[in-house]
Amino acid sequence: MTVTLLVCTTCKGSDPLAEPRQGAQLHAALAAGDVVVRGVECLSACSNGCAVALQAPGKWTYVYGQMTPDDAPDILDGAAKYAASPDGIVPWRDRPLIFRKRVVARIPSFEVSS
Amino acid sequence: MTVTLLVCTTCKGSDPLAEPRQGAQLHAALAAGDVVVRGVECLSACSNGCAVALQAPGKWTYVYGQMTPDDAPDILDGAAKYAASPDGIVPWRDRPLIFRKRVVARIPSFEVSS
Repeated sequence: MTVTLLVCTTCKGSDPLAEPRQGAQLHAALAAGDVVVRGVECLSACSNGCAVALQAPGKWTYVYGQMTPDDAPDILDGAAKYAASPDGIVPWRDRPLIFRKRVVARIPSFEVSS
Repeated sequence: MTVTLLVCTTCKGSDPLAEPRQGAQLHAALAAGDVVVRGVECLSACSNGCAVALQAPGKWTYVYGQMTPDDAPDILDGAAKYAASPDGIVPWRDRPLIFRKRVVARIPSFEVSS
């Protein structure tokens, strides 16, 4: 099952003057992982940037905010656990701390019952 | 193309003591519209409740927060425009004001290119 890690490349994060933008820096940092990474121009979570999202067919989609390029290893760890879960819901205590603290929203798949 | 309006029924919104919860009230208010409404227990947007989301196969998913039961007519108006759009992206000036002001996040579909 293909898991995609969406990364908002237009997020300015905590440094509005950074060039490249922190979202683009985060995108580059995440490319080193095993997960499929896809840059997206604006996840409309600007007040919570840098924002990323995990999605896979049949799984809940999760959006996380307030990420920094330094969080890349923890994001990749969380993405691997997401990939290993049947429905995208990783047990709470197994989630990286940044995922527990900085979730912006989650959306069920069309197939997943509530 | 089936459009689903997800409504978080566990959101407490602006009144933590309301019974039923504001999310459940909003869910009930939206059931009168033409769109397929689906209650969901927690969209993990608790700090931005009440939260709703619009999703459809092949379209961007949009999550909105800070909704109230009184916003139901505007939400249904926005849902109809979303349904009429080819990719879920409604022209900015056509969006209800609450959708312009209170977007929490948007997520591309698996098929939509960025």
